[in-house]
Amino acid sequence: MTAQEKLSNRIEKNYHICVGLDTDINKIPKHLLASDDPIYEFNKGIIEATSFQAAAYKINLAFYESRGLEGLRSLEKTLEMIPRGILSIGDAKRGDIGNTSKMYAQSLFDHFSFDASTLHPYMGKDSLQPFLEFNEKLNFILVLTSNPGNSDFEKLSLSNGKFLYQEVLSKVHQWNENKNCGIVFGATNIEELKSNLSHIKNLPVLLPGVGAQGGSLEDVVKAFASYGSENYLINISRGLIYADSSENFAEVTAAKLEQLNKEIHQNKYTSD
Amino acid sequence: MTAQEKLSNRIEKNYHICVGLDTDINKIPKHLLASDDPIYEFNKGIIEATSFQAAAYKINLAFYESRGLEGLRSLEKTLEMIPRGILSIGDAKRGDIGNTSKMYAQSLFDHFSFDASTLHPYMGKDSLQPFLEFNEKLNFILVLTSNPGNSDFEKLSLSNGKFLYQEVLSKVHQWNENKNCGIVFGATNIEELKSNLSHIKNLPVLLPGVGAQGGSLEDVVKAFASYGSENYLINISRGLIYADSSENFAEVTAAKLEQLNKEIHQNKYTSD
Repeated sequence: MTAQEKLSNRIEKNYHICVGLDTDINKIPKHLLASDDPIYEFNKGIIEATSFQAAAYKINLAFYESRGLEGLRSLEKTLEMIPRGILSIGDAKRGDIGNTSKMYAQSLFDHFSFDASTLHPYMGKDSLQPFLEFNEKLNFILVLTSNPGNSDFEKLSLSNGKFLYQEVLSKVHQWNENKNCGIVFGATNIEELKSNLSHIKNLPVLLPGVGAQGGSLEDVVKAFASYGSENYLINISRGLIYADSSENFAEVTAAKLEQLNKEIHQNKYTSD
Repeated sequence: MTAQEKLSNRIEKNYHICVGLDTDINKIPKHLLASDDPIYEFNKGIIEATSFQAAAYKINLAFYESRGLEGLRSLEKTLEMIPRGILSIGDAKRGDIGNTSKMYAQSLFDHFSFDASTLHPYMGKDSLQPFLEFNEKLNFILVLTSNPGNSDFEKLSLSNGKFLYQEVLSKVHQWNENKNCGIVFGATNIEELKSNLSHIKNLPVLLPGVGAQGGSLEDVVKAFASYGSENYLINISRGLIYADSSENFAEVTAAKLEQLNKEIHQNKYTSD
């Protein structure tokens, strides 16, 4: 099944929440620390409890790389737990010259078998080309991020009147020949999202910033519903996976996900 | 010894070549393939033969990550071979939101003990902040890269009349409070380098693009000499480490490095 099919299958069921596995050994329930691989045990619990209604899983590679070989072992085992029908996003924000980019693409797509990547646009098309050549994968290119520093460069005005991030968005449409591009667009400022939806069109959108970073789930869902697109994933990491620190952590996270899905359903069909 | 001290110690000796360990299993001498860890054996040979006059070693993480756990093991063993007095650059081109960036910084600086990083500026200051807090490390921020795609965004004109990459350069000066910032500036177009040296000032510059990508060593050395700065590293990877595929590969690379250093010395003191 292609990444595109996995995504649309879940969206058809009104599942839009991407569960972010930013798993930090210092934040997981303490009882797991006694096991051989606490990170994996935590992820396994979360995945088993949430896979019936998660739209995707996003794995932030930094959290695994920072633990060296042990962390990569946890990552490999975690990936084996994700059901084949659900999109797995390797959130690595790569971007480098061609021969290096090729290595990164092989690492994410061939070695780890992720369905999707996240990519830095700064170095331009040839830096992303090796990723774009994987027809059956998805590449979420950073357009507008959800952090305060998005004003340093992303929101600079160009001489053509556009913001830099809007120029990146235009280029992503051009680069989408294999229908395997998506974008990352922060959900912290809803007006920015609304005013750009007509440029985003039907590109898959991965939205960070809801929850811990302050964006509103309701606003995002209503904005897409008003525009008439369903092609989006709302990533929630810390706000979802650390909902509880007892032995029932996974069930609490699953209940929270169910609640979020209800909110999405309600707001999807009551747009302004 | 701090990263800054390591760099200046080598530059004082007129060593400016950064040996890029972009080690590809398909390109190393065939006789090494019989060993347990061919990548490590290759790197070990290169490092032992070149450390007497290398200015720095740059390790491109993609080449190791693409080999999974085995690759990371080769990386860790390689790092142990680099003499403590020589700058090691973890070329990973990271850049992510604060809590993730912190993980990447810990991975490169604490776990692997690299002296320096390379970073993507797109997401702005807070995405780099965790790296900038390591006072005794160096962070080479991408300003102008050496690939064709540098025209997609890096060379876009801003409404203030500057190119985007020049705005990034200005910001790097602002962010350099701990004197631990440097820049990556492609050496493929010498006129661009010359016309920006007065803005670069004394920031350490890591220059890709000489050799396989077409930039001229002579031009770069003369440009810095004319401007009166010595604070630069010329990275050469493929053009240096794959100079020979026999059992004498390391000695051939060392001889080539010696020749490059002679060229640098000649051109440094005969600038136009």
